[in-house]
Amino acid sequence: MNKDDRQQQIQPVLPTCSSTSDCFPLTHLTNPECGSENSKKHEVRANNNPADLFRMRSVVSFYICYVLCLCLGLACVVCVCVWNSHWRQGFAWDGSNQQFNWHPVLMVTGLIVLYGNGAVLYRVPLTWGQNKLPWKLLHASLMLLSLILSILGLCAVFDFHNAKSIPNMYSLHSWIGIAATVLFALQWAVGAAGFLLPCSPVSLRKLLKPVHVWFGGSILVFSIAACISGINEKLFFVLSGNQPYSSFPPEAIFANSLGVLIVAFGLVVLKILSNHKWQRPDSPPEETGYTQVIQDESE
Amino acid sequence: MNKDDRQQQIQPVLPTCSSTSDCFPLTHLTNPECGSENSKKHEVRANNNPADLFRMRSVVSFYICYVLCLCLGLACVVCVCVWNSHWRQGFAWDGSNQQFNWHPVLMVTGLIVLYGNGAVLYRVPLTWGQNKLPWKLLHASLMLLSLILSILGLCAVFDFHNAKSIPNMYSLHSWIGIAATVLFALQWAVGAAGFLLPCSPVSLRKLLKPVHVWFGGSILVFSIAACISGINEKLFFVLSGNQPYSSFPPEAIFANSLGVLIVAFGLVVLKILSNHKWQRPDSPPEETGYTQVIQDESE
Repeated sequence: MNKDDRQQQIQPVLPTCSSTSDCFPLTHLTNPECGSENSKKHEVRANNNPADLFRMRSVVSFYICYVLCLCLGLACVVCVCVWNSHWRQGFAWDGSNQQFNWHPVLMVTGLIVLYGNGAVLYRVPLTWGQNKLPWKLLHASLMLLSLILSILGLCAVFDFHNAKSIPNMYSLHSWIGIAATVLFALQWAVGAAGFLLPCSPVSLRKLLKPVHVWFGGSILVFSIAACISGINEKLFFVLSGNQPYSSFPPEAIFANSLGVLIVAFGLVVLKILSNHKWQRPDSPPEETGYTQVIQDESE
Repeated sequence: MNKDDRQQQIQPVLPTCSSTSDCFPLTHLTNPECGSENSKKHEVRANNNPADLFRMRSVVSFYICYVLCLCLGLACVVCVCVWNSHWRQGFAWDGSNQQFNWHPVLMVTGLIVLYGNGAVLYRVPLTWGQNKLPWKLLHASLMLLSLILSILGLCAVFDFHNAKSIPNMYSLHSWIGIAATVLFALQWAVGAAGFLLPCSPVSLRKLLKPVHVWFGGSILVFSIAACISGINEKLFFVLSGNQPYSSFPPEAIFANSLGVLIVAFGLVVLKILSNHKWQRPDSPPEETGYTQVIQDESE
């Protein structure tokens, strides 16, 4: 028996689509042999073949997008805070204009940045070889925190309106914004019931997953539209008199740039969500023997 | 020789992933045997097996989405016309407020409805068994018409602003809207050069295609954000005095509903674009012998 034969005996015969160890999960989606009978007869080795190069390129391009997503998200949060502290007299919770300032900060931080980062969490390839449950709990926690910030952001503006006797929910901005938050709350509740409750059947999870992913992206589109219309509306309200919006004051340039950053962040998140090559692969049924724990948490 | 044997002799042996004749193109993406050696040995028959049922369900769900897309698009065009003719005193091209009214009508019709319908054209399964070139020309023509309407819409508002000595391009709405139109013009030019010029190499087309699709969806997100912020801004401008926006006049309810329709239309288009099962399949290289014409035009 030569050395190669001994290696073949020691290594277990795994399908090429395994989501564990040295078989990088992208193979599941990129290898044309996935799902074929032949694939089950192949061994997994970290060779420098074209498939390996393809999947390395895919991982590198994912991380470029992910770093861009993190940087744009951070830039959005910094900009919305600077805008409201530097040009809009900072923050308070007393029914004054300073209370209103919590509204853009909390909505951009919660409904855009934290939401977007929570949405793409499963796409990070580093998390794929591990048990899904902790990542699922982190995803749910990030989304819950994002939802709480968004609801606090709505409370800030409702409270401010009530203190100033301004009617609520009349503008298109408010309609789109409330739709985004209500849909988000529904999405969280259905997601928690469908994916976290142990009694939820696997068949229901499989059915729910694509709807959950698509609904997640749709809520982000609602949020982007709400934020852009909200910043635009706010600037028309506050920039008047000596320095109207139309005279291009520094605040207008800064807040307009925040709007562009929000759209750019949203597009990067939607790009990550829509790229099927970057989806966390589900463990195929044949793998049950090897990855029972991962299989249990795969949906 | 029995009847079944004779049928086997008459029917040509095609791969299951063929985009021609009775092998519905969705098989290319849904059949787990795609890309495997085994698939080349199988014949195509319209049996009532699970794969056929799966692909029929996929086609039915596509057409439900497509009909929804057409209805929502029509509703958007009707609503934006009714809003501007019934509540905003109709249309003119004389620098007056009636000239401005062309702006929302042309932008919603061009940059949202016609654009969205042009974008999903390739997804209509009825077009898949045919030569791609006429559909490519129709896609390019629809997009060109959409671009022309959008540019006319911008001319309407620039001309109106100049006539009233109102500065251009200061609001976030205008930044997002101009970005959408400029990106759209670039997308059209690159698309025409990359996919219509006969000298454009197939390797470039293959590289360009996913970028073109993703960029197309991104432009739609820009357009939705621009339209929502524009309608919101317009309503704040025109609804004042006895009937402010905050008093929920019928015009506000109507135009807000138009905004919701626009977001709904955009989400249906993005749903159709993002569903990989609904993509027009490219003819795999092995099929060159059967579908040379389609292969030539597949990118």
